Amino acid sequence: MSHPVTFINVVDVDPARHQELVDLLVEGTEQVMSRRPGFISATLLASLDKTRVVTLARWESSDDVKATQADPEAAAYATRTAAIAQPRPGLFAVVGEVTA
Amino acid sequence: MSHPVTFINVVDVDPARHQELVDLLVEGTEQVMSRRPGFISATLLASLDKTRVVTLARWESSDDVKATQADPEAAAYATRTAAIAQPRPGLFAVVGEVTA
Repeated sequence: MSHPVTFINVVDVDPARHQELVDLLVEGTEQVMSRRPGFISATLLASLDKTRVVTLARWESSDDVKATQADPEAAAYATRTAAIAQPRPGLFAVVGEVTA
Repeated sequence: MSHPVTFINVVDVDPARHQELVDLLVEGTEQVMSRRPGFISATLLASLDKTRVVTLARWESSDDVKATQADPEAAAYATRTAAIAQPRPGLFAVVGEVTA
């Protein structure tokens, strides 16, 4: 049985390389992640103080995420990210939705 | 001039206190955050390995977030969170949206 999951990557970065990191993460999401089986959608957020970038990607199942992480093209983007910043990826489940 | 912003709090926690943290963050979001001026919506996500909880809250402006952080009721929840976990809050802007 599979459940939708959210992949979240919290990436710390030197503010001097913030824009470079944003460009790389947007490119990797558009060029590789979005074309993989099980991908639903992604949102990228940049901190106003330029020290962090967060990628949230919704997937059909955790197996789809694991298969993507094992994909050589996706792994190449992960390596490029780790060369200029400190990524911390993980799998999450939504535990609350609150509206005004 | 004001722009919508996303408040993201990445909270590290001992897996033994993971559920307690989830309950506290959901309660604080429902009871305090969602009733504040400028609040739009929030999503809470728990990592499958139980080491992190992420709150994403969309607000009308960064001034609304600052006013909320200065509110005594909100500050009390922040203090309770910091007593059982390691929060790292910040203000973010959306820099990319990608769909399959």
